[in-house]
Amino acid sequence: MRNFDERSITAAVRERVGQASDPRLRQVSDALIRHLHDFVREIEPTQEEWSRAIAFLTRTGHMCTANRQEFILLSDALGVSMLVDAINHHLPGGATETTVLGPFYVQEPPELPLGANISPGLAGVPLLVTGSVSSAGGPGLAGAAVDVWHSDGDGYYDVQQLDEDHGLAMRARLRTAPDGAFHFWTIMPAAYPIPNDGPVGEMLAAQGRHPYRPAHVHFMIAAPAHEQLVTHVFVEGDAYLDSDVVFGVKDSLIRPFAEMPAGMAPDGTRVDRPYRHLHYDFALAPQRRVA
Amino acid sequence: MRNFDERSITAAVRERVGQASDPRLRQVSDALIRHLHDFVREIEPTQEEWSRAIAFLTRTGHMCTANRQEFILLSDALGVSMLVDAINHHLPGGATETTVLGPFYVQEPPELPLGANISPGLAGVPLLVTGSVSSAGGPGLAGAAVDVWHSDGDGYYDVQQLDEDHGLAMRARLRTAPDGAFHFWTIMPAAYPIPNDGPVGEMLAAQGRHPYRPAHVHFMIAAPAHEQLVTHVFVEGDAYLDSDVVFGVKDSLIRPFAEMPAGMAPDGTRVDRPYRHLHYDFALAPQRRVA
Repeated sequence: MRNFDERSITAAVRERVGQASDPRLRQVSDALIRHLHDFVREIEPTQEEWSRAIAFLTRTGHMCTANRQEFILLSDALGVSMLVDAINHHLPGGATETTVLGPFYVQEPPELPLGANISPGLAGVPLLVTGSVSSAGGPGLAGAAVDVWHSDGDGYYDVQQLDEDHGLAMRARLRTAPDGAFHFWTIMPAAYPIPNDGPVGEMLAAQGRHPYRPAHVHFMIAAPAHEQLVTHVFVEGDAYLDSDVVFGVKDSLIRPFAEMPAGMAPDGTRVDRPYRHLHYDFALAPQRRVA
Repeated sequence: MRNFDERSITAAVRERVGQASDPRLRQVSDALIRHLHDFVREIEPTQEEWSRAIAFLTRTGHMCTANRQEFILLSDALGVSMLVDAINHHLPGGATETTVLGPFYVQEPPELPLGANISPGLAGVPLLVTGSVSSAGGPGLAGAAVDVWHSDGDGYYDVQQLDEDHGLAMRARLRTAPDGAFHFWTIMPAAYPIPNDGPVGEMLAAQGRHPYRPAHVHFMIAAPAHEQLVTHVFVEGDAYLDSDVVFGVKDSLIRPFAEMPAGMAPDGTRVDRPYRHLHYDFALAPQRRVA
C-alpha cells in the first residue's frame, strides 16, 4: 500500500473501502471512487484547479442555512435531482408524473381548511386552484394531505424574505374532501431565477446559462397505501418551459391558468376583479410492496 | 427540452453546459455531468439516500473554518488528492517525489534563521533536521524557501489548538545557505488520526477504516526556475506506513529519524539528552516551459 501512481491509486482506495461492513455503503463507496477517479483522470486538473474545486464546495456549504440549500440547487442545476427523480419513479400508467422537490419546501406547513386563501393580504393576481386526488385508475382519496407552495408575482418564496413583518405564506397543507376534491385561493406565481448570488449562480453564469424556472405551483401529496407524489403544475405559455434551469418540465404537468372575468367563481366566491383558475386532477401510484 | 428520462437527461444537461464560453470550463462541466450521472445511474439512490448525500455535503461545508478544511480531508481520504498529485508530477529522474499538501499548511509561516529551534518550549523528543536543496542532477540552490510543518508528539498541529496561550509552532520558513544546505531543531512528530469528529470521520468509520497517518514532517520548497515541491518525509518503521489513510506514502520519502545519544550534535549544538536526527537531500525539478 505505497508508491501509487495515477492508475494504481484507484485499486488501493477501492480495496480500503471494501472493508465497509454495510453492503450498500460498500457498493456506493466503490462506485463513487471509480467514477470520481475516472472524472479526475479525464480532466487532469492542475493543483490550482483542484484548489478552486475545494473552495467552490466549501463556499457552497457555507451558503447553506436553515432557509437556503445551495447543494440542492447544485444538484438541481446539474440535472442530478431530476435523474434521481426519474430513477425512483417508474410509475404505473395513469399516475401523475413527478418532478423535483426544490429547496423551498418547509416541513409541516400551516394546515388550512378547504377553500382558504393561503396568501391573505399579499399583492398579486388572485388564483383559484381546484383539483382532486385519486388512486391511479381508481376512486378519489379522502383526507389526502395536499402540501402546496409557490412563489409570489415577483418570483420570491416566503422563506426568501422572512423577517419580523413576513411569515410563512403561499404555502399550506390541505386535506381532501370525502370525494378527493380540494380547492384554495392564492396569488399567481411567476417565473423566477433560482437564487444566483452564490456558487451555483457563479457556475451558471460561467456555463452561459440563464438561472430561470418557468412559473409553477409545487405539490406534495400523501395518502395511506400510496406513493408520496412530489410534483409541480407549470403555467401554460411560460417563456421558460423549454429551458428550465433544473430540467424539471414534463408536458403532462403543464396546464392553463385560465384568465377569468370578475364575478362568481366556480367555488361560489364573488371576485371583484379578473382572476386566474387552475384545475388539476392528481393520481397517486399505489404503494409498491417491498419483497 | 422537456420530458427527460434517466437516459435523455444527461444529453440535455450536456447540451446546456455546452454554451460555456470558456473551453476548459466547458470540458470540465461536460465530464462532470457524464461521470456524475453515470455514478447516479449505477447506484440508483433512493430519494432518502439522495437527501443523506445532500446533508453529508452540507455538514462537510459547515465543518470548514479558517483552521479546518473538511473538503480537503474528504479529497484526501478518497484518494483524490494523491491522484491529482500523481497527474501533476510526472517528474524527471532524480527529482524528489511529491505527496499531498494536507489541510494544515499555513500561508506565510514565520521566517526563522538556519539552525533555529522552530518549537521552542514545547515538550517532546528533540529532533535535528539537516538537509539540502538542489536542482535535480545539478548544483545546490542558495536561498530556496523551505517551509516546514509537522505535528507534536501527541499528533496535533498548532492550528488544531490555537488559543490565547498557543500560537503557531512546529512550523517555519527557512532559507537555504549558499551551498543549498539547511538545518533546524524541532520535536519529534507522531502518527495521528486525521480530524475525525466530522463527516469524514463518520465516513471512515462506516467504511471500516482507521483514520491514521504515519508520522511525518511536511516540506514545501520553492526556488526560482524550479517546480515547487510539496512533500513529506516519513519516519522509518512507523506502524501506519502501509495503511496511510490518505494513501500518501512513497518509499523514497521514508527515512530513519536516527536515535542519537546526548552530546555534541552534528551542527555543533550540545544536547543534554538523547535526540533524533533526520537528514534529507531534496532535488527540485527544473520548471517546465509552457509552450
